[in-house]
Amino acid sequence: MPQISEKGQHLPASPIRKLTPFADKAKQDGKKVYHLNIGQPDIATPEGMLNAVKNIDFNIWAYTASEGTLAYRKKLTEYYNKHGYNITPDDILVTTGGSEAIVIAMMTCLDAGDEVIIPEPFYANYNAFAGQGDIVVKPILSVIENDFALPKASEFEKVITPKSRAIFICSPNNPTGHLYTREELEELKALCIKHDLFLLCDEAYREFCYDGRQFTSPMHLDGLDEHVIMIDTVSKRYSACGARLGCLITKNKQVWQAALKFAQARLSPGMVEQIAGEAAIDTPDSYFEAVSKEYTARRDTLVSALNKIDGVYCPTPGGAFYVVTKLPIDNADRFCQWLLEDFTYQNQTLMLAPATGFYSTPGAGLNEVRLAYVINQDDLKKAMVCLDEALKVYPGRVVNAARVAAHVE
Amino acid sequence: MPQISEKGQHLPASPIRKLTPFADKAKQDGKKVYHLNIGQPDIATPEGMLNAVKNIDFNIWAYTASEGTLAYRKKLTEYYNKHGYNITPDDILVTTGGSEAIVIAMMTCLDAGDEVIIPEPFYANYNAFAGQGDIVVKPILSVIENDFALPKASEFEKVITPKSRAIFICSPNNPTGHLYTREELEELKALCIKHDLFLLCDEAYREFCYDGRQFTSPMHLDGLDEHVIMIDTVSKRYSACGARLGCLITKNKQVWQAALKFAQARLSPGMVEQIAGEAAIDTPDSYFEAVSKEYTARRDTLVSALNKIDGVYCPTPGGAFYVVTKLPIDNADRFCQWLLEDFTYQNQTLMLAPATGFYSTPGAGLNEVRLAYVINQDDLKKAMVCLDEALKVYPGRVVNAARVAAHVE
Repeated sequence: MPQISEKGQHLPASPIRKLTPFADKAKQDGKKVYHLNIGQPDIATPEGMLNAVKNIDFNIWAYTASEGTLAYRKKLTEYYNKHGYNITPDDILVTTGGSEAIVIAMMTCLDAGDEVIIPEPFYANYNAFAGQGDIVVKPILSVIENDFALPKASEFEKVITPKSRAIFICSPNNPTGHLYTREELEELKALCIKHDLFLLCDEAYREFCYDGRQFTSPMHLDGLDEHVIMIDTVSKRYSACGARLGCLITKNKQVWQAALKFAQARLSPGMVEQIAGEAAIDTPDSYFEAVSKEYTARRDTLVSALNKIDGVYCPTPGGAFYVVTKLPIDNADRFCQWLLEDFTYQNQTLMLAPATGFYSTPGAGLNEVRLAYVINQDDLKKAMVCLDEALKVYPGRVVNAARVAAHVE
Repeated sequence: MPQISEKGQHLPASPIRKLTPFADKAKQDGKKVYHLNIGQPDIATPEGMLNAVKNIDFNIWAYTASEGTLAYRKKLTEYYNKHGYNITPDDILVTTGGSEAIVIAMMTCLDAGDEVIIPEPFYANYNAFAGQGDIVVKPILSVIENDFALPKASEFEKVITPKSRAIFICSPNNPTGHLYTREELEELKALCIKHDLFLLCDEAYREFCYDGRQFTSPMHLDGLDEHVIMIDTVSKRYSACGARLGCLITKNKQVWQAALKFAQARLSPGMVEQIAGEAAIDTPDSYFEAVSKEYTARRDTLVSALNKIDGVYCPTPGGAFYVVTKLPIDNADRFCQWLLEDFTYQNQTLMLAPATGFYSTPGAGLNEVRLAYVINQDDLKKAMVCLDEALKVYPGRVVNAARVAAHVE
């Protein structure tokens, strides 16, 4: 029997999805499972976007241009320029979800053995995308005690080598919810210019900034045009994860042209999605205002409930719809599986994502989990009651877990 | 300014799409361009499939399972079992187009430096997909004089090394239209078992077999379950190229499980596409009969017209909707660009795909082009008149091109 690749053997399973069989079993056994593991919002997709799908009027479901239709790229340009990006349709490459944009950006900038520096914890699949091209991820630790702020430039300097080609950030951050400030981005800019590095930025959660905080993109900074490759998706912005429609934006023409060749190999992004994406740009501001209000309330409910549980610490993040929280547990993977397999409270349990999968450093995040606040507030409250009860009886509870001192905003 | 990757620099542009700027220019100048370069059929997508899109009734455009919805995999199972595949939904991984299925299959079976053997000419993007993982393509030559039949086992043996991991075929073949016989597949089976190789088969054109020929899949052969990974797409079958919906099918559980991890990293195939894909399975047989009749007529028109042109030779392929034909020219790339830039006949010209891009061996296919018969017969005839006129005046015409002797079916 032929053997599969080393790559196929060693690729870690998704920390967000690997516990799914246990959740399925729990549900089969009649348990109610609160899904806080996955970033699949329960918010309705804008009607205009769905209506665009219902109103398609073509006879042939055809390929589009590999870089995306001009109509969609023009419409996207409107959206980005409203947000101060100062781009043209020629700077945009439409992709099949943000995932494909990341893969293409990585392959365009890095060869096998080249290094990309990513503050950890980070979205677990970056590891998988890098691994596909044998690209080396060099993590640098951001810590819960410091609200997962960007590590100091000196920390980056420690891991920069002649093989370093790029820094990769995600803001607002998945999994931590941290929103990078303009000052943090200016530090990254200095590093990228000094060491001639690309700066890849995943902005999937741009629309999710709370408490009046302002979103800043590396594309807003002067003098960084040749360095920045921005990655985006409609998944979270319009609660349209299943549309698989994203884009890669860069003003570096050499990068764009090379990225196009990778895009040409896979022929075309989805046609119906691009039609829907065009319509999505006309989503009224009131949609985002309502969504932001809802998520802010959920975050406050969640963070407040978490911090009331004995031995738990959770910062109050400025964006996205995730938190990473510290729990009084021995091992997050064991705990999350135990919740589904062995625990029940009033016939309910919850599914969480172990934070270990978001760290590249072995052993990091062992007592942390990621929660996505993508369920309604009533269910969130019930889920937190469940978590409280679970922590009381979990056999791997660590009683003397160092409680983090007062959280300073 | 940071430098892009070697991979990004050296990836060849798509031979099918790289001449697009010249075609655009020709059209801007008012020329009528017959597009024979790309496999985008002009056949209507089945109504049932389009209606499924128009009738979507969800509020949240959500992720699906990474392996595809169970509903769609069940429906696909019906289709394949009708064609003798004897599979279950658990053997199927739904992908974003056939392209993604190929990338996932390659990454699952081969590491950087491992070798995949592909009879050439082959679909140009296989090179790009292999290149993404630094996988080495070892071509073996199939020749127009022999109707692009499978090279002899002895030819395969010559290129098999300890680094060989897989043989990759496409039947009916893009670009040649060759339909592999059961006998040819039995030879491949013996090779794969003897050398413990995977057999990847791209069956995008399964429904396009002519003259009563029977399609045989490597999945129809006994004793090869652990070796075969089949790749498919709805693109050509239902004239739905822009749907980006494909699948990977294997009975090798280790392969399927590793492939799932790659699929989990990119989260999910498109949701609307899977709904449409389900509906597509109920497309009546009459649709395929009409399509097959139309393509057979086009093929006959095209091949007959080509062989009447002085110095041209084209075999009569058994499937797909492509031919590779030999022309009395010095250089196919130059000729195809010249057609768009410098030639016009009654204000018309044609766009072809230079066959050089379908060969991995440098210098092979210099006097061959691929034509896709995806335009109606009237236009095909006009395009062939154009080609005849073009060859009369092309400055790089090779007068003493060896005419291939009588074509034996």
